[in-house]
Amino acid sequence: MAEESKTCCDRLAIDPDIREDAASRLRSIRGHVDGILRMLERDDVYCVDALKQIKAVNGALSKTGDLILRGHLKHHVVTAHERGDEDAIVAELMDVLKYR
Amino acid sequence: MAEESKTCCDRLAIDPDIREDAASRLRSIRGHVDGILRMLERDDVYCVDALKQIKAVNGALSKTGDLILRGHLKHHVVTAHERGDEDAIVAELMDVLKYR
Amino acid sequence: MAEESKTCCDRLAIDPDIREDAASRLRSIRGHVDGILRMLERDDVYCVDALKQIKAVNGALSKTGDLILRGHLKHHVVTAHERGDEDAIVAELMDVLKYR
Amino acid sequence: MAEESKTCCDRLAIDPDIREDAASRLRSIRGHVDGILRMLERDDVYCVDALKQIKAVNGALSKTGDLILRGHLKHHVVTAHERGDEDAIVAELMDVLKYR
Repeated sequence: MAEESKTCCDRLAIDPDIREDAASRLRSIRGHVDGILRMLERDDVYCVDALKQIKAVNGALSKTGDLILRGHLKHHVVTAHERGDEDAIVAELMDVLKYR
Repeated sequence: MAEESKTCCDRLAIDPDIREDAASRLRSIRGHVDGILRMLERDDVYCVDALKQIKAVNGALSKTGDLILRGHLKHHVVTAHERGDEDAIVAELMDVLKYR
Repeated sequence: MAEESKTCCDRLAIDPDIREDAASRLRSIRGHVDGILRMLERDDVYCVDALKQIKAVNGALSKTGDLILRGHLKHHVVTAHERGDEDAIVAELMDVLKYR
Repeated sequence: MAEESKTCCDRLAIDPDIREDAASRLRSIRGHVDGILRMLERDDVYCVDALKQIKAVNGALSKTGDLILRGHLKHHVVTAHERGDEDAIVAELMDVLKYR
């Protein structure tokens, strides 16, 4: 996989606007994780309240991933045939979508 | 939902061992998020590499959630009929499982 | 897993009303699958239209699963401590929730 | 969405080999659903056994979806810039990936 990334996509960076948007969301996610850590310091924290917070962070992470995925499709995947790296780009994309 | 938590489960706290294990995992997750933030400072970061890291954090969060869920089932749900709060505990559990 | 089912839950059947509701949903799901099969006989079927139908069936199956899960929690899991099979019932439940 | 499909992708059909493979998988899935329906006719069917079968069908459906998705990426998405329909094809793809 790392090999394929190297082969197909050396010059394919995330668009700067998307990079900044994603970083901003991840800083907020880090703050949310800090909030759950403070919650877990209390010895009366209720399981379902912690589960709800974890699900919320998972949702925020998925939205951040969708943002990057949309940019990847728009800037790199739709032009893959012109570059000639379509097999590598599809293989690595399917690989990462499996984790969804 | 918050109402139901209050009604059914005031005294149902997370087991201390699970709480410590979950906190330890969340500290590691926070470090992983910091790593993605550093990755996004580079202007040549590749979309799929960022997506893989986000998926890895999603997986680590889900495992933390499973740990808390398992404890909740084991310590609180299996005794709900004895306490008489089974309707509330099932309703809130189904609600949180929907987010999975 | 099959062993544990045998050990813990021989007498724990699905509630008849839930069984009938789930069967009715599955008959509708079977009809939906038949519809996708007819769609795939056309040589001009568009990928995304087929994907949307598959996702719809996945959603209908998940709702059927949630119906059975809710009944399982309500009728069997909340009484597990009284029966004394809580370890087995939690282990098999976590195992099936992993697939969600 | 339906409008966009019309606009962008009238001539973009599923590859015949993939269509046949997907149909074959869906026939097997229909047989699996029939098996769950027979299971639900027994009044002693255990919740978790039904849940396991439903999860297995969901998994088989997802694999069928991945097959069609891979074909869509390989045959249609990587050439979207050349056709000039990249905005529409990315929008509808993100819409269907949300359901995953």
